[in-house]
Amino acid sequence: MPKLDFWYEFASTYSYLSAMRIEPLAAAAGVDVHWRPFLLGPIFKSQGMESSPFNLFPLKGKYMLRDMARWSSDLKLPKFMSPKMFPANPLNASRLAISFEGEVRKNFSRAVYSAEFTEGKDISDKATLAEILKKLGRDPEACFAKASDQPVKDKLRTQTEEAQRLGIFGAPNFVTSDGELFWGNDRLEQALAWALKR
Amino acid sequence: MPKLDFWYEFASTYSYLSAMRIEPLAAAAGVDVHWRPFLLGPIFKSQGMESSPFNLFPLKGKYMLRDMARWSSDLKLPKFMSPKMFPANPLNASRLAISFEGEVRKNFSRAVYSAEFTEGKDISDKATLAEILKKLGRDPEACFAKASDQPVKDKLRTQTEEAQRLGIFGAPNFVTSDGELFWGNDRLEQALAWALKR
Repeated sequence: MPKLDFWYEFASTYSYLSAMRIEPLAAAAGVDVHWRPFLLGPIFKSQGMESSPFNLFPLKGKYMLRDMARWSSDLKLPKFMSPKMFPANPLNASRLAISFEGEVRKNFSRAVYSAEFTEGKDISDKATLAEILKKLGRDPEACFAKASDQPVKDKLRTQTEEAQRLGIFGAPNFVTSDGELFWGNDRLEQALAWALKR
Repeated sequence: MPKLDFWYEFASTYSYLSAMRIEPLAAAAGVDVHWRPFLLGPIFKSQGMESSPFNLFPLKGKYMLRDMARWSSDLKLPKFMSPKMFPANPLNASRLAISFEGEVRKNFSRAVYSAEFTEGKDISDKATLAEILKKLGRDPEACFAKASDQPVKDKLRTQTEEAQRLGIFGAPNFVTSDGELFWGNDRLEQALAWALKR
């Protein structure tokens, strides 16, 4: 079965859209999706950017909000809501996501995005994350303990370094088995088609 | 007939792709396209950018080149070729385009893009533009004279100011009659669908 790496960032609005639509599209195409959270902060910093481009370039930020409203409507998602703190610090959510495997990671990631971008919650706050974990039937304290293990921290760091090696500079991204990189939620269809061609 | 404004910039690689594919798509959808050249330079400057984002952020620039190769292949366009000077100064080409109306403007604009991005020619060079004009059956000297008339210069300036008022920060863009702004070649289909819905 063709495979597609889905590189996502918890503070990224367009990653949220892809997280919500990738699985049905990939299933229909017969492509297996590997969810790979990473951190954009170090990548932005290495390019000389101290914040999200949506903050650094306010016109782009304003357009993004309108675009998210349109996409949310097209995809029949709840009304888009920007959290007060944007971009949110994604560290805790990313470590938790990495500490899970398979479907649990996918369900957790989608739940984080929903809390962040449809309820405007602060996902850097452990209380928000604990609530999400409880709803998923997980014990928050046990999850937090596992997510702060050194191997989990190392895995997130390694994964972010791998993103840099791939030439990633934003999110979301889709990378095929033969190393082809597609950037942006609106390129998901092209990435799936590429994965199938090989 | 629904109408769509196509805002393009002669130095913009993604505007080139849209210029090559917009007319058949719009005709099939029953949408009338109004071609509106403008200058990104003043808009980038007002955001604190002294060059194209593809130069300021080399990873983005590298990705863009790969992406152009893929799009060119998908759209069955000639092999993409980046001109030595990127971004090219679009002033002369833009004034010429503005001095033409209707189909002549469209044909001239596509010919400029082809010279720039499939032959790697310098479109800031009047010799390149003269060659294009001759191929289109126009008298280069008469065209240059008309393009340097004050009303043509003013129209380009006014048009660039209008782009700024619309919140435009990149290229290409598609704007519907009800003022909805879509940024990026990959949003052409959404823009056409929006134009038809109203």
